[in-house]
Amino acid sequence: MAVRAAVAGASGYAGGELLRLLLAHPEVEIGALTGNSNAGQKLGALQPHLLPLAGHVLQETTPEILAGHDVVFLALPHGQSAAVAERLGPDVLVVDMGADFRLTDAAAWEQFYGSPHAGTWPYGLPELPDARARLTGSKRIAVPGCYPTAVSLALFPAYAAGLAQPEAVIVAASGTSGAGKAPKPHLLGSEVMGSMSPYGVGGAHRHTPEITQNLSAAAGGPVSVSFTPTLAPMPRGILATCSAKAADGVTGESLRAVYEKAFADEPFVHLLPEGQWPATASVYGSNAVQVQVAYDAAAGRIIVISAIDNLTKGTAGGAVQSMNIALGLDETTGLTTIGVAP
Amino acid sequence: MAVRAAVAGASGYAGGELLRLLLAHPEVEIGALTGNSNAGQKLGALQPHLLPLAGHVLQETTPEILAGHDVVFLALPHGQSAAVAERLGPDVLVVDMGADFRLTDAAAWEQFYGSPHAGTWPYGLPELPDARARLTGSKRIAVPGCYPTAVSLALFPAYAAGLAQPEAVIVAASGTSGAGKAPKPHLLGSEVMGSMSPYGVGGAHRHTPEITQNLSAAAGGPVSVSFTPTLAPMPRGILATCSAKAADGVTGESLRAVYEKAFADEPFVHLLPEGQWPATASVYGSNAVQVQVAYDAAAGRIIVISAIDNLTKGTAGGAVQSMNIALGLDETTGLTTIGVAP
Amino acid sequence: MAVRAAVAGASGYAGGELLRLLLAHPEVEIGALTGNSNAGQKLGALQPHLLPLAGHVLQETTPEILAGHDVVFLALPHGQSAAVAERLGPDVLVVDMGADFRLTDAAAWEQFYGSPHAGTWPYGLPELPDARARLTGSKRIAVPGCYPTAVSLALFPAYAAGLAQPEAVIVAASGTSGAGKAPKPHLLGSEVMGSMSPYGVGGAHRHTPEITQNLSAAAGGPVSVSFTPTLAPMPRGILATCSAKAADGVTGESLRAVYEKAFADEPFVHLLPEGQWPATASVYGSNAVQVQVAYDAAAGRIIVISAIDNLTKGTAGGAVQSMNIALGLDETTGLTTIGVAP
Amino acid sequence: MAVRAAVAGASGYAGGELLRLLLAHPEVEIGALTGNSNAGQKLGALQPHLLPLAGHVLQETTPEILAGHDVVFLALPHGQSAAVAERLGPDVLVVDMGADFRLTDAAAWEQFYGSPHAGTWPYGLPELPDARARLTGSKRIAVPGCYPTAVSLALFPAYAAGLAQPEAVIVAASGTSGAGKAPKPHLLGSEVMGSMSPYGVGGAHRHTPEITQNLSAAAGGPVSVSFTPTLAPMPRGILATCSAKAADGVTGESLRAVYEKAFADEPFVHLLPEGQWPATASVYGSNAVQVQVAYDAAAGRIIVISAIDNLTKGTAGGAVQSMNIALGLDETTGLTTIGVAP
Repeated sequence: MAVRAAVAGASGYAGGELLRLLLAHPEVEIGALTGNSNAGQKLGALQPHLLPLAGHVLQETTPEILAGHDVVFLALPHGQSAAVAERLGPDVLVVDMGADFRLTDAAAWEQFYGSPHAGTWPYGLPELPDARARLTGSKRIAVPGCYPTAVSLALFPAYAAGLAQPEAVIVAASGTSGAGKAPKPHLLGSEVMGSMSPYGVGGAHRHTPEITQNLSAAAGGPVSVSFTPTLAPMPRGILATCSAKAADGVTGESLRAVYEKAFADEPFVHLLPEGQWPATASVYGSNAVQVQVAYDAAAGRIIVISAIDNLTKGTAGGAVQSMNIALGLDETTGLTTIGVAP
Repeated sequence: MAVRAAVAGASGYAGGELLRLLLAHPEVEIGALTGNSNAGQKLGALQPHLLPLAGHVLQETTPEILAGHDVVFLALPHGQSAAVAERLGPDVLVVDMGADFRLTDAAAWEQFYGSPHAGTWPYGLPELPDARARLTGSKRIAVPGCYPTAVSLALFPAYAAGLAQPEAVIVAASGTSGAGKAPKPHLLGSEVMGSMSPYGVGGAHRHTPEITQNLSAAAGGPVSVSFTPTLAPMPRGILATCSAKAADGVTGESLRAVYEKAFADEPFVHLLPEGQWPATASVYGSNAVQVQVAYDAAAGRIIVISAIDNLTKGTAGGAVQSMNIALGLDETTGLTTIGVAP
Repeated sequence: MAVRAAVAGASGYAGGELLRLLLAHPEVEIGALTGNSNAGQKLGALQPHLLPLAGHVLQETTPEILAGHDVVFLALPHGQSAAVAERLGPDVLVVDMGADFRLTDAAAWEQFYGSPHAGTWPYGLPELPDARARLTGSKRIAVPGCYPTAVSLALFPAYAAGLAQPEAVIVAASGTSGAGKAPKPHLLGSEVMGSMSPYGVGGAHRHTPEITQNLSAAAGGPVSVSFTPTLAPMPRGILATCSAKAADGVTGESLRAVYEKAFADEPFVHLLPEGQWPATASVYGSNAVQVQVAYDAAAGRIIVISAIDNLTKGTAGGAVQSMNIALGLDETTGLTTIGVAP
Repeated sequence: MAVRAAVAGASGYAGGELLRLLLAHPEVEIGALTGNSNAGQKLGALQPHLLPLAGHVLQETTPEILAGHDVVFLALPHGQSAAVAERLGPDVLVVDMGADFRLTDAAAWEQFYGSPHAGTWPYGLPELPDARARLTGSKRIAVPGCYPTAVSLALFPAYAAGLAQPEAVIVAASGTSGAGKAPKPHLLGSEVMGSMSPYGVGGAHRHTPEITQNLSAAAGGPVSVSFTPTLAPMPRGILATCSAKAADGVTGESLRAVYEKAFADEPFVHLLPEGQWPATASVYGSNAVQVQVAYDAAAGRIIVISAIDNLTKGTAGGAVQSMNIALGLDETTGLTTIGVAP
């Protein structure tokens, strides 16, 4: 079997990471690569780390060019995926790495994105309850956001098991690649090296409703979310520090037992041994999630901390993992749990 | 007037930063510099950025060598300050940059530090209510910890004004200099560059009782503190993201008004204009504190974020600021609010 | 005496660093600040580390606004300084931080900058032979480029003393602030963190003729220069590794003796003790230059390595140092040799 | 075929990188892992990025434990390999990642390493002339040093083709992992972030004789080498800037033609298109070498710049590549030319 894959938006960071993974995927053959403003350029000038594709020329993002593939990955700006997907036909697997089809609540979409809601596709976070069943055989996949991936995997077991009160407080640090490749002054190396700074504070970040959706689904009722993202001086990685007041009767032991069970059979999510804490460097370039839990008896809170690579498990690796499930391949095909460190 | 100052522990990061500031202080003359394991070495080999002191030889930390100064700064490992201070006499201003005399609660000291409590000295965070009165003329000063400086300045106005419920959730990122100069594998450049990782999770960090003490004093009653420190890939800086459930009736406007009033006359603490957020790069090498506030109506929480330089306002600059007050000098002498950026 | 200073181009990195230094300069009063594309904005949004000027509004760069100052600093794009300077009158001290008036050779200017040569002003590198005499009382100063500052200070003593053959090989690493604040993809934090890369290889960098001019002047005859700049993952700093074949009879001792003598009375240039090597971190934010020399007997070459802060000694600090000389102030006024480290 | 491999020294950076590659090698089965001071510990605590081996316990480095494998990799401190290798028998493939068997000149070994010379093994840089023939079927391999890999690949074609005069000047920047995992003050993150600094200046670095050996072999006569290594603020990567005076008659075209031919069939060494320069980020975690050349007519020099990952192509990837050749496997098995970027 050779799965022929096209990538719309191959010149950005998400597209580049996806190509890095697809080049190593034994069942995938890379087809058309598109990028509107960069159409006509060789990929070697835009993604110099992808040597095997250095001579590949980017094409325009049109339905004709994307036609004839088994899978089409969309790494487009928000709001552009629906129009492209419509033209691809129902038999093509379309994997949207943008936000367009993640939310079930049209009002939340419109509040945070300011445009009409395009719809909701099966959500590509396989580790969530019942997610794999919805992804198997699906022809449409909405890849989760990077922060929602890190946060939802950290907190869903606690909410599903009734260990946490429905008010989550999350502070997450992300590497700069999460902000994309479009040059802006505050993303210059001169500005970010040596600096930590917050943004989207007070519920303003667009990933807030997506996190809320996932945690509420796990809890079986509404969970309020206080989410503060921060920009960290590193190219990749998310460290999510998540906490909530503990439900009555929670102990350190019961907390750990729930997480051990939740991730026991997961190929990519690893609960670390007691005493060891996640570090983003350990998952650099890998699809692994490192998780650790603590119960703070004095504060009466559970704390769950997760580390991912925002471009791999948080974007392109998550996309490939869900593609594998949709196509009936082994879920781990072409993916690794080994980071590049130090 | 020339204040003659000695520094015990001049070879570490706190001692080096203190010397950087004292060299620029118009009223201070630098006297004895000591450092036990490095005694006999020239400072130029240990602190190559302090060119004017390059030829200065470190001495042993003994009462005889520290005698004859107006001020003695102690930058010693925890637990060593009391013995040295006793021998210096009651007329010498002793400024302890260690933890020994910060806590009022002997039981908390013993729980977190595992040794007998040495006592409590006037606490050198001048911006806290009534602190300046206690520091003026004092001959003993306990310099606050770096995290407690960033967190207490962020949250005390909310607690003093009754805007926040008594359960604070704090996640802070610190540059690596906060972990000191003793070489340990996890502090190697190879390990920390490109990585964010937590430590002391679940209330285990020694700064937890100090933060609790300050916030409880501001609130006039016990405040529980959930504090998670993280190590960030930068040499200096702390970004503290602090939140609490809002008290009834709080609005964004009332929150901002309280902070505007709290810091209106403070020389070092700056509430940023609305829409601008703190960044550690902006306070690099400066004694300034940048603060911003937000009210998250959906989550019902107030969020206060502060940025400091952990070595300057968080340690040595705070020490000089309190020394100035104790000696009756202008509080800002020798200190700056201008950062070195980018 | 209060010197009233205007800064044209106050929103960039050079302008920001200049303001940082002028704020600490006891003889200078800051006047008009201009910035064309940012005119009308408050400086606090553009230079958030300069808290004392946060409310200062940028004006247009016009002769009327720049009039009425004792000193006008120009931090403008190449080619714009002449037109502004003409309108300022001969009695105003004009300090050009751009390249326009550095070169004596009009043909070299035209080859490297592609526009007509505007002229030559006294060159603001006081440590070069006879430079101070030309700067004293001058009303026009051409501030050197950052690389030429680091390289010329490293090599001029060897050439002036006849120790080096006239073929210099220089490889220098610069922090990203040297590339300015205009956002470009290759300067994004995501791109530069974790990466070293060269640019302007093979004699293409515009600082090549300036370095050639300085070394040839020191040698009293033409010196050929092979100059390779590289971009390093740090905000500030230049480390210049400079070498040349040794003249006959050179020894390690004679080399060192020449450098000891050359810098013995220099307030900012420090020959480090034997065995200690320059590091850019040691001169972070300072006007100091750290230099070390070696004679490689096996290769028959002398190696001289210098470290500066590209924004301080390499740009704004050098400008202030030369201004001090031109105005008859002590050369070190408002400048420091103390770095911010770690 | 399953090649059973042991790794002596599995807890360091070279050992960790080797395991990362071996885990992805389809023909290798990982056997004993040893590490003297860490014997008895689980690998998960020492190499947290190698999740599949997290529970693997390190053993003592003894002949008994290393026996019974097809390949034994030695990642030991200099001087320890000979004693271990002797006990392994002539039929085991021993790949030494240390320096012990790299040099042919016993006097040079003794001068730079201060101990008796252990001997010379086939040198594991397959791209050098005739190297593959010597490696095929060999039971002993000396893996090159990281700097010699980057420099020799950059310059051997010029010397082999007679384009360069026999005096090479090399300045190279390395990430901190090249200095190893043993904690030393100058390698702390606080010290290296934001700093460039040289070391081993003037011919003192131990890689100097190895570079000299390789370039002299290519030139067919002695080449003198001026080599200055510098420490750069990044975990991985080497950027080597190499130059020499051009031989008579060299042009930009003839230079480029030689390099195009030299690397045309090399799977890992890529001459970049004209106008594009190497960056260490592009080869992060990959076995690729990026090379670019320039002829500086004004200075009469050729400049060749190469970028590698010091731990991959510079150490562990080079070791695997040579192992593949020795065992008769396809040379590229288990290796990639795709970097992890940004």
